[in-house]
Amino acid sequence: MDKHELETTTNLSPKFDNNGLIPCITTSAKTGKVLMFAYMNQQAIDKTLETKEVHYWSRSRSSLWHKGASSGMVQKLVEMRIDCDQDCIWVTVEMQPEASCHTGRQSCFYRKLERSDNGTITMSYIDDELIFDPKDVY
Amino acid sequence: MDKHELETTTNLSPKFDNNGLIPCITTSAKTGKVLMFAYMNQQAIDKTLETKEVHYWSRSRSSLWHKGASSGMVQKLVEMRIDCDQDCIWVTVEMQPEASCHTGRQSCFYRKLERSDNGTITMSYIDDELIFDPKDVY
Repeated sequence: MDKHELETTTNLSPKFDNNGLIPCITTSAKTGKVLMFAYMNQQAIDKTLETKEVHYWSRSRSSLWHKGASSGMVQKLVEMRIDCDQDCIWVTVEMQPEASCHTGRQSCFYRKLERSDNGTITMSYIDDELIFDPKDVY
Repeated sequence: MDKHELETTTNLSPKFDNNGLIPCITTSAKTGKVLMFAYMNQQAIDKTLETKEVHYWSRSRSSLWHKGASSGMVQKLVEMRIDCDQDCIWVTVEMQPEASCHTGRQSCFYRKLERSDNGTITMSYIDDELIFDPKDVY
């Protein structure tokens, strides 16, 4: 497909990278917050749509990753979208409790970046409440 | 830095890929919607924090990309975060009008994916209102 066709078609044609993966953004249906960022392959896309529970591809384990399968904190799929050039997926999810980060936090994005007056970049914690203790879960 | 240090430090240490890039998720401060997905390099991170206007790295043009510089639809930075393992950036932005996709739409994610009963995946348009006509802008 050329660029224009990719942007207008309703035929799915995900642009996988050399490893067969496509980036996936996961947000909370409740709060709109970005919970995590991971990768899917074709199998993960299929499984997610089929089971309505989000599956990723674990790059560290080189295997399909049914998020929450062991902890019980699965991500229920509310909606899946793909972007204009079909090289990124966005899933909206519900989960209970809402804790997507392996550190025990709601979101993996618990540190913000700012620039101080002298030009250095500082990081500080934000939204960093622990929803669960990783020691209890993993 | 080892994994634990990456997750807990307040020293910025982005994990750039082989091309010196890190993925960046952009959401609307107003609606929480994912507007777009792109990449940053160190220079784009620095410029974004310095100018409070979002800069990316354009992979197609191989150059720093000050989003909206030519169209006037710049993305004002509200907040920048980084994830647990420091391999993804999340920026929250304000822009007027809110139109981040080069197709003229608010968001690049204007098609949703669903699975029909016979197992095929279907795509359909959603939130696909044109905020501007690309012909007028580019």
